[in-house]
Formats: sequence, structure tokens, C-alpha cells
Amino acid sequence: MSKALPVVQPNQRPAAQPPIFGKIGIVGLGLIGGSIALRARELWPSSLVIAVDQKDVLEVAMRRHAIDVAADDLVVLAEADLVVLAAPVRQNIELLQQLDDNVRQPAIITDTGSTKREIVAAARALPPRYTFIGGHPLAGAAQGGLERARPDLFEGRPWLLTLPAPSDDSAPLEKLSAFVRALGAEPRVMSAEAHDRLLAFLSHLPQLTASALMRVVGDAVGQDGLSLAGRGLSDTTRLASSPDDIWKDIAATNADEIGPALDALVDVLQTLRKDLSEGDRLGEVFADARRWRERLKKQP
Amino acid sequence: MSKALPVVQPNQRPAAQPPIFGKIGIVGLGLIGGSIALRARELWPSSLVIAVDQKDVLEVAMRRHAIDVAADDLVVLAEADLVVLAAPVRQNIELLQQLDDNVRQPAIITDTGSTKREIVAAARALPPRYTFIGGHPLAGAAQGGLERARPDLFEGRPWLLTLPAPSDDSAPLEKLSAFVRALGAEPRVMSAEAHDRLLAFLSHLPQLTASALMRVVGDAVGQDGLSLAGRGLSDTTRLASSPDDIWKDIAATNADEIGPALDALVDVLQTLRKDLSEGDRLGEVFADARRWRERLKKQP
Repeated sequence: MSKALPVVQPNQRPAAQPPIFGKIGIVGLGLIGGSIALRARELWPSSLVIAVDQKDVLEVAMRRHAIDVAADDLVVLAEADLVVLAAPVRQNIELLQQLDDNVRQPAIITDTGSTKREIVAAARALPPRYTFIGGHPLAGAAQGGLERARPDLFEGRPWLLTLPAPSDDSAPLEKLSAFVRALGAEPRVMSAEAHDRLLAFLSHLPQLTASALMRVVGDAVGQDGLSLAGRGLSDTTRLASSPDDIWKDIAATNADEIGPALDALVDVLQTLRKDLSEGDRLGEVFADARRWRERLKKQP
Repeated sequence: MSKALPVVQPNQRPAAQPPIFGKIGIVGLGLIGGSIALRARELWPSSLVIAVDQKDVLEVAMRRHAIDVAADDLVVLAEADLVVLAAPVRQNIELLQQLDDNVRQPAIITDTGSTKREIVAAARALPPRYTFIGGHPLAGAAQGGLERARPDLFEGRPWLLTLPAPSDDSAPLEKLSAFVRALGAEPRVMSAEAHDRLLAFLSHLPQLTASALMRVVGDAVGQDGLSLAGRGLSDTTRLASSPDDIWKDIAATNADEIGPALDALVDVLQTLRKDLSEGDRLGEVFADARRWRERLKKQP
């Protein structure tokens, strides 16, 4: 007697969860916005994922089944109870000013940009039916774009959230924390000021350094010389593939923190330069760097 | 009727080849020297691999079956017809002066150091029974040591050899080229001057930059900040794990080429610093860097 066997799905989606937000609006479907959309659709089948971007991007997103509703106009966000601004930093700041005309409901507004002070300041002018909480998932890659988006992008990665004013209701922060935790990330709350200083060193300085180094080395040795390059140069310059439009915004909105970080690096490079033949301070810099690098590797 | 099956060896060694050198002396069994030894033993069972290093290193090499003969004294190289100096650069230069008392036969002497002008100049004082050809396998790793040595380390990697004086017999260069090709590498001949300028940009500048960056970032954000770092910082600072004893020698013997390379980098970093809020020249640097980085990736 034959009997139907249970069907095993090899790529089973995670079990659906009770929705945290009913209508999730995402403005900008790049690597980050696209990955939020993909994961949200898996987790919350009864929530609507509403996307705003250019039509060609939305077509790709529709083909990937990343979104439910799409438009190239913010008006589609009328009923959203969460709006995620996932465009470059200064575009996000401009988008803030257009929310009042489009998002009709009380909503939590967040962003995913790499600097936080300017947008947090701009958000103070929002109508009181919105609660703004700045956000920054630390899950970038040297190369962005919707085509690289994936639902597990945030798995185990930190997602920084800005500290609301002490007077604010704590419920929105708890709700947004639950949302990013569901996406796989680990929420961590800090002030916009602490965020921008930290990221100047963890992310912005390495990016500028990698681009500057790649430019100098390429100009000096040319294509033929680069053909002899090994893994050292390749690792050290991987970030130089990053798109410059995003980075112009980051540099402009965090110039006062990135500047001193660049100065500190130039200072150490000039110490090394003076000390090439002696090697004493070179040895010190190398020893300090190795010690920090060991701790960096020991991350979970 | 049972029949014996041919035994298949899953980790078959490469077929033995006719020996190029009968007695291969290697001074310094780190990542490079150890990998040469391991591969030479596989390729040429009838050649002797003779190693000179400290006793504790030699014990490890013996346990790994990397060498045939070992001593902590150069006297063991009396009959060598190839001597590979694989210690840090300035030690190699000192070792040159001790060869005459120890290596009795006509021999090819080479080295594996990361700078070439000083050792090539020092080698002019060698007795005429030796032929010196500088060598540099571009197969380093951020972390060295015999424990990381492996016979396939040089597979497909360039191995730079210094151009001998025009009057010199071409046979030794051909013989040494055949040797490094058998180790899996691709020999490429250039002047010591061209080598040192090229490596200042391809290797020495990235190394100093990675160490300086790691020092600055670690000092600024501390252990807690580093726990939030992502792949960008991790890639950009991977070289900061390098041992400083090797790098003191490299810096000291190539200071006049590394200095201007550092100046060029500082110059671009200072341009970026001035331009953080404008973004025009920042965009140019990023665009140039991306273009070079694309070509770097297109390497075979």
C-alpha cells in the first residue's frame, strides 16, 4: 500500500512571526534596503512591504519577490507604520522633509545611513505624529546594489540605534529593536555623537585610506605592476571598490570627525617616514598594531 | 576469484624530476624557506635538502620531514651547489660574509628578501666561485613561520630574480629560473632598482599603511569599539599582523623608495581631508581608485 510522504523543503523559510509593523515602507532598495525587504517578506507574510525607488530598480525587486507594493513616489507610504529611509545620507535628510505630505499615519521613521548627527538634528522638525530613531546596520560590503541583497545580510551583525531624548516614550525604541532583532541583527543604542565618532574610525577612515592607497599604488606602478600584486595589496584595498556617491555624503556629514581621524593617521605615517632607517618607532607602531589586530580577530 | 585492486593514493606527491641541484642549502626555515624545503623534498628525492636554523626550528622541520640534513652552523653547507638565504634582509647580508669560510664548492647563491639593492651590492664582494642572483618570491602572507609553510605556497605566484651583470654567464640564471619554476612559481627578471621601487608600492606601502591604520583605530576606539568592527576594517588591516623584525629590515634597506611612496599617500590623504565637505576631489580619488581596483581584480 503506497502512502504519501511528507514533503521536505530543503530551503525552508523561517517560521512566520506575528507582525511587528503592518505596513513597512522602505525608501531606496540597495544592498541594505533590499536585504531588509527580503527578510521582512520571509518573516511576516501578513505585513505589507512597500518600496519606493526608481522604476527599473522596482522591476528587479518585483522579480526577486522582495516587495509587495512598489512606486516611484512617496505617496504610496500613506498608511505605513514604519518608514525606513535607505538612500544615501543626504537624500535621506531631504526625504524627511517630504514625509509630512505623504505618510498620513503615526509612524516610526528610521534610516540606515552611515552618519547620524545631521539626520537626527533634521528629524527634530518632523510633525509630532512621527517618532524618529536613527539606525545603522553594520553590514555593508565593498560593493552594494540590490543584486547583492540577501535576507541573511544582518545575521549576527550589530545594528546601531540612536538614543531618543530622555523624555521620549520608550515603546518605539523597543518596537524598532524587536524589528532589527527579528532581521537577525543585534541592536545597540548609543548617542548620535558617539556613533559618528566611532564610525569615523571603524569605517570612514579605513574607506578613505583604502581608496587613497589604491590611487597612489595604481598611479605609481600601472597595470603591468599591478599584475604582480599579491593578497596583501588586494586585502588592503578591497574597500576601494566602494561607490563614491554614498561616500561623498558620508564625508560631508561627518567631516568634523573624519578630519581629526585622518590627521591621526597622517601623523603616524609621518612618524614612520622619519623612522624608516632607524626602525625603533617603526617597531613600536608595528607592535601596537599587531596587538590591536589580534583583538580584532578575537571577535565572536 | 578475488583480484588485487590497484592502490589509489589520494594525496599523491608530484612525480619526481631529475635534480637541478644536488645539495640545496637553505638558511632560515620560516614560511618561505620551509616551503622551499617541503617542495624540493617532494620534487627531487635524490637531492639533499640541507637546512641551517636554530635547533628548535630544525626539530620542527625534521618532524615535518621538510629537510634531510640540519645544523645550527653554516659549516654544514660545505658541499652545497645552491644556497638560499631565507632570513630577514639584513641577516642575509651578514650571512653573505660568512659563506667563503663555509661553502667550499662553486655555488649559486640566492636570497628571498623583500629588498634587493643592498644585498646585490654586498654580493659583489663574494669570491668568484659563487654566482649571486637576488630572488624574491611574491608569496608572503600576513603571518609567517615554519608552521604555515606548505609545498604549494609558490604555485602560480611571481618569483622576481635580479638581472645579472651583462658580462655574466647566463647558465646560472637559467638554472635558478628552472628551479623556481619547478617550485611552481613564475620567474621574472628585473633590475634590483626596478624591484625595490615596485615593491615599495606593491608591498611596503600597503604594509606600513595597514599597521598605521590599525594603531590609530585601536588607540581611538579601544577593545569595546573594535568589537563592532566589520569586514572593511578587518580586510584593510589584515597585514597589521605581520612580524616587525622582518619589516624593520625592509624599511631600513628600502627607505629611499618607501619615503616618497609614503609622501604620495600622505599627499592624497591631505587632499581628501581638505575636501571632505565639498566632495569633488574626493569623488575623483574614489573614481581613480575604483578603476585601479577593478584592474587589480582582473588578475589571473
